[in-house]
Amino acid sequence: MTSPADLASPVRLRAVSAPNQPDVTPALEELYRGFERELLIPLWTEIGDLMPLHPRSKAVPHLWQWENLLKLAAQAGELVPVGRGGERRAIALANPGLSGRPFATPTLWAAIQYLMPGEEAPEHRHTQHAFRFVLEGEGVWTVVNGDPVAMKRGDFLPQAGWNWHAHTNATAEPMAWIDGLDIPFQYLTEAQFFARGRDVLSDAERITPDRSYSERLWGHAGLQPVSAAARDAAKAPGSPLLAYRWENTDRALADQLALERAGVTSTVEPGHAAVRFSDPFTGDDVLPTIRAEVHRIARGAETKPARETGSSVYTVFDGSGTVTVGSKTWSVTRGDLFAVPSWEPFSARSEAAGSDSDSGALDLFRFSDSPVFEALKLNRSA
Amino acid sequence: MTSPADLASPVRLRAVSAPNQPDVTPALEELYRGFERELLIPLWTEIGDLMPLHPRSKAVPHLWQWENLLKLAAQAGELVPVGRGGERRAIALANPGLSGRPFATPTLWAAIQYLMPGEEAPEHRHTQHAFRFVLEGEGVWTVVNGDPVAMKRGDFLPQAGWNWHAHTNATAEPMAWIDGLDIPFQYLTEAQFFARGRDVLSDAERITPDRSYSERLWGHAGLQPVSAAARDAAKAPGSPLLAYRWENTDRALADQLALERAGVTSTVEPGHAAVRFSDPFTGDDVLPTIRAEVHRIARGAETKPARETGSSVYTVFDGSGTVTVGSKTWSVTRGDLFAVPSWEPFSARSEAAGSDSDSGALDLFRFSDSPVFEALKLNRSA
Amino acid sequence: MTSPADLASPVRLRAVSAPNQPDVTPALEELYRGFERELLIPLWTEIGDLMPLHPRSKAVPHLWQWENLLKLAAQAGELVPVGRGGERRAIALANPGLSGRPFATPTLWAAIQYLMPGEEAPEHRHTQHAFRFVLEGEGVWTVVNGDPVAMKRGDFLPQAGWNWHAHTNATAEPMAWIDGLDIPFQYLTEAQFFARGRDVLSDAERITPDRSYSERLWGHAGLQPVSAAARDAAKAPGSPLLAYRWENTDRALADQLALERAGVTSTVEPGHAAVRFSDPFTGDDVLPTIRAEVHRIARGAETKPARETGSSVYTVFDGSGTVTVGSKTWSVTRGDLFAVPSWEPFSARSEAAGSDSDSGALDLFRFSDSPVFEALKLNRSA
Amino acid sequence: MTSPADLASPVRLRAVSAPNQPDVTPALEELYRGFERELLIPLWTEIGDLMPLHPRSKAVPHLWQWENLLKLAAQAGELVPVGRGGERRAIALANPGLSGRPFATPTLWAAIQYLMPGEEAPEHRHTQHAFRFVLEGEGVWTVVNGDPVAMKRGDFLPQAGWNWHAHTNATAEPMAWIDGLDIPFQYLTEAQFFARGRDVLSDAERITPDRSYSERLWGHAGLQPVSAAARDAAKAPGSPLLAYRWENTDRALADQLALERAGVTSTVEPGHAAVRFSDPFTGDDVLPTIRAEVHRIARGAETKPARETGSSVYTVFDGSGTVTVGSKTWSVTRGDLFAVPSWEPFSARSEAAGSDSDSGALDLFRFSDSPVFEALKLNRSA
Repeated sequence: MTSPADLASPVRLRAVSAPNQPDVTPALEELYRGFERELLIPLWTEIGDLMPLHPRSKAVPHLWQWENLLKLAAQAGELVPVGRGGERRAIALANPGLSGRPFATPTLWAAIQYLMPGEEAPEHRHTQHAFRFVLEGEGVWTVVNGDPVAMKRGDFLPQAGWNWHAHTNATAEPMAWIDGLDIPFQYLTEAQFFARGRDVLSDAERITPDRSYSERLWGHAGLQPVSAAARDAAKAPGSPLLAYRWENTDRALADQLALERAGVTSTVEPGHAAVRFSDPFTGDDVLPTIRAEVHRIARGAETKPARETGSSVYTVFDGSGTVTVGSKTWSVTRGDLFAVPSWEPFSARSEAAGSDSDSGALDLFRFSDSPVFEALKLNRSA
Repeated sequence: MTSPADLASPVRLRAVSAPNQPDVTPALEELYRGFERELLIPLWTEIGDLMPLHPRSKAVPHLWQWENLLKLAAQAGELVPVGRGGERRAIALANPGLSGRPFATPTLWAAIQYLMPGEEAPEHRHTQHAFRFVLEGEGVWTVVNGDPVAMKRGDFLPQAGWNWHAHTNATAEPMAWIDGLDIPFQYLTEAQFFARGRDVLSDAERITPDRSYSERLWGHAGLQPVSAAARDAAKAPGSPLLAYRWENTDRALADQLALERAGVTSTVEPGHAAVRFSDPFTGDDVLPTIRAEVHRIARGAETKPARETGSSVYTVFDGSGTVTVGSKTWSVTRGDLFAVPSWEPFSARSEAAGSDSDSGALDLFRFSDSPVFEALKLNRSA
Repeated sequence: MTSPADLASPVRLRAVSAPNQPDVTPALEELYRGFERELLIPLWTEIGDLMPLHPRSKAVPHLWQWENLLKLAAQAGELVPVGRGGERRAIALANPGLSGRPFATPTLWAAIQYLMPGEEAPEHRHTQHAFRFVLEGEGVWTVVNGDPVAMKRGDFLPQAGWNWHAHTNATAEPMAWIDGLDIPFQYLTEAQFFARGRDVLSDAERITPDRSYSERLWGHAGLQPVSAAARDAAKAPGSPLLAYRWENTDRALADQLALERAGVTSTVEPGHAAVRFSDPFTGDDVLPTIRAEVHRIARGAETKPARETGSSVYTVFDGSGTVTVGSKTWSVTRGDLFAVPSWEPFSARSEAAGSDSDSGALDLFRFSDSPVFEALKLNRSA
Repeated sequence: MTSPADLASPVRLRAVSAPNQPDVTPALEELYRGFERELLIPLWTEIGDLMPLHPRSKAVPHLWQWENLLKLAAQAGELVPVGRGGERRAIALANPGLSGRPFATPTLWAAIQYLMPGEEAPEHRHTQHAFRFVLEGEGVWTVVNGDPVAMKRGDFLPQAGWNWHAHTNATAEPMAWIDGLDIPFQYLTEAQFFARGRDVLSDAERITPDRSYSERLWGHAGLQPVSAAARDAAKAPGSPLLAYRWENTDRALADQLALERAGVTSTVEPGHAAVRFSDPFTGDDVLPTIRAEVHRIARGAETKPARETGSSVYTVFDGSGTVTVGSKTWSVTRGDLFAVPSWEPFSARSEAAGSDSDSGALDLFRFSDSPVFEALKLNRSA
């Protein structure tokens, strides 16, 4: 007999006749009702889901096409104001396996952010680690703790948790970029703090320099400032370098492929160059919970299928090709985004279409939750 | 208009008239339908839930009474066989805030495990980090990679991921203990591997020594074996010491309180002694994702309310008293378990009932996900 | 021609006719005089000494016999007062290869210290890291930052740099022990600070407890105090545990040999057990510059010759046997000390003499500069 | 009475009548003879030298003038061949306080190396960590593990221990540079290994590229190669980046001074910019035992006297000024070298002479043994 109290229990157990399950008897049913009353759940009914032989992600491989995203973001630019409360005109990828939550993977948030001419997104800070990766255009400056940082196509801008930041579009054109954050991870572990800053920037912060203060201090390869203040600030989690410019990334990738051609071991595998954004003060990943990389697959090259614990989101920065995630294969082109769930094999092939790409390479920006797995020694790959 | 395709989308957006939300217009409705079609969710409708000013746990403070747990576990002992497939007769606490999942908190699993006389739980291993803490009785040996480890009331037995282990009850009495694991954390991050071992132990492993090999190698305070093999093995994640005996824990706590009485700074706060189980090879937490401690609150003492990011589960090992978690206050006694969600203030008061406890102290065993937060620099306290 | 200025130069160069050396000509002689004037020395005349194919120590293998040491120390007890200025009645081993300096090896200081009944050695502190290892007797307490720590045969007492300490003999017997320090290393690198403390201890510090405060806080295997004060203090260089008692060391060694007999991998090699004193807060060596270990070589067992970069000093704690260091072989017995220079092969054989030793094992206490080499990645072994 | 055996002892003790010393009596004299016989030295006669209140370096502040060094090096170029055995035409600074040893400070070697047109210095490797800093000219390539690395004025080339390297002068001009090594440190600690490589380079290694393979892999600010081979190689001690070009160093220093003028905290102190060469894979010092930095003191600026444990050698890269080391003050100009012993206060003032320097800044290259002190927690500053 079911009492009203039972009805209130969120626990619902069903005795089923199955191998490795106890015999379904009235006594077992009564036991299960007792479990429900006391808010208990046995391992033996759950173990298959909780403790699989290898990761079986709730998330699914999925592709979002840039063309559609950009169109909707532009519509949002017309309809949705940017301001305190909503904070940002950011539109997140919702993995269809994750119950309608705005999570690209179980741990990662990926969104397109859109800022109209002259708009300013108000200052705030949060413990969530974030970055911006620019797919199109230029003309927005992000002001981080008073330091205006330019944003242009291909630039990667890490934004470690708990630093003040605001965005300002100094041009007559709208601008769009990719936001990546560890929102789902901090949501699930319940680590989040958020604070509102000033509603408007000062005039001194509305300057639009090519290079930020942080780049002038920390953007010189292998050279660290000796100033005690600079070094102390760099001890905070995440990189003190606030922008990684595309021209450097592009040159590093080109160098790897050139070295490979010269017979020097330099690439991940033949035709597959890759760089990882790193904290110049520690050499670690650029953010405590997020790894960010750019992979260049030379014209006609193909990567070996690889799988690892943890999930990734990829963006096609340039070129076109075919990617395979688990059982899904897609043709992808500039701007497209896709999710690679934990332990799903991933591979990519570069297929230059016509003459519109000089190099014919497929450039993929990737971010993942690998630092979480490595810090906790849960990383595996195959 | 809603198309059949929309119906298939797990994303459901509702335009609402509210401060900080865009005006509800047909154009906005159409935009939201576009978002649904493309599997997108805007930040501005979700930010309050995703990015709160401070952690607001989905989990709730909750108390499970040992008396009820033990009774149900004993019934399960009669009805539910232990064997391959179900693997363990473990019954997990299901936090009522977590949608009927077997999670004590968003990251922690806590269960009562019950083994009948002569029973053997089959060998397996998994990446989930685990421990056993014994509330009652003795007579079970856990065989870890061939090393039989005795279990007695008060003993703490860490079980770092990916080590083979089986349980065997060598006595004529049933035995119950607490299992703690990072199952929810690994479930959410999707890091899990599992492997089945041998179905039965060898006779050589069915010996029942007081001290395990691991204790003889690693159980001497401040003394590490020099053997290369021992040191290499200790480099695997988690503690090489497989049992922390209650008599040592008890003495360490008593020492702290005695030092405090002698005027030496030794306790967390007046009347509040505490020890943390640590890896003797690294000094770190005993498991990469789980912190384990015993707190002793002297008769009549009371702890200052404290909050921190991350969640805990407590067990009353001995004594009785009153605990407060957020807005809930409970009288607790031996064996009771309760969950402390992220950022909920916690305090405890020792209230010796009658003469059944010599010391009158309240001994609380606690485990938490703090190592996750510290490794990722997400820890905060107040 | 030699000018008076040349005479003042500490540099003296001699052109020699030898393979790999430039032809001796008047021009070369003039060049060398120029080098002397300008305080310059060419690599080509020095490279053989400075950059050998492998370490060739200036120090030599040498044995000091305890009987002789103790006799002289006792005489010093009669003739040399202990007090401010001289600070300690410590008599250091001077390796005959090291030019009459009080250095047992190029980096290590080893001395016998002797304290007469009722004497007190005044409080001081220094950056040099130190330890005491007791060969005979008991009855002295070392007061470290106000914490009286008992000393008894076999006890190991680390004394990390910059902690206040004084010694007091509370008995009617003189007492002798071994002092080990990194005096030569800090002398050569010029890192030393020294400060005088109080000339006399307070009455409250003249208590003679069996266990120090530090042991009560930090002396429980795998259990760390949670108190913020205790943990902060433990962050200072070196171990917070101020005494490692012989009974524990002895048991740990016996356990290793017993495990070996039971077929469990536990020893360095057959019949050779060894423990390393470690910092319970970090698992690291007990002192930043000094490693300390006890090796037990079972009756009749023999160690394989081993060499490593860096130097060691050994003391025979118990038993007797034969040791070989490079080209020297000695019979050794209780109390004897010997130096093992860098890269000299070392081996030992246990030879129980008669029935005066129950176990017949040879117990060797060893300390070395290995942590220096490991921290700087200069360690090698063969 | 002195026996023949005594005469053989390197230990010589003299009983002196002094405060804090035992009374000089025949018994004391006899005790001291006993000490000599047994190779013992008491602390009480040595403590003032061994354990000073603060570091009192054996080394003295000293200046070597570039003009004289270069002249002698050029003479050596005529008289001393380069080849196997002598290995390098390197001429070391011999600090006048260090008994005629080729040590600039107790731990550091600094030399001028000179290579004639067409010469090749043979391949070898050694555990000593080294670097080259180019004061004048260009045209030499150092071939490191097969990778030819160009050398030009202002370039800094770290050479971590145990990597093969050879030098080849591909031009018709001689070339000179500064060699810095930890030879004295490894000599004192006796850690050194040395191996000879091939006597001549292959033709493929005699190419003269502007950028080495290592720069193309590791020389992109904040960008690390993802290739497993590159990352594994980078785990070896020291930086995987083999050249730090002057144009980058110069720009980083100029940026700091420009930021300072813009009101952004960026410099060590007003008018004093400084960069540290770092390992891009770890963010650590570029070599395990050597720190290397360039300091720019703006025209008319002056640094605050600073002292620290450990020693340094400075080179004037550009400009002129006045430097003070302890009680010595010198006017210095391009190329001059000077030693700063442990704990001696150091300050510098820029004094542009005439119009020969555009900026008027004093650029000082500095290297020190700070990583040794920091790794062992012996670092202090004031």
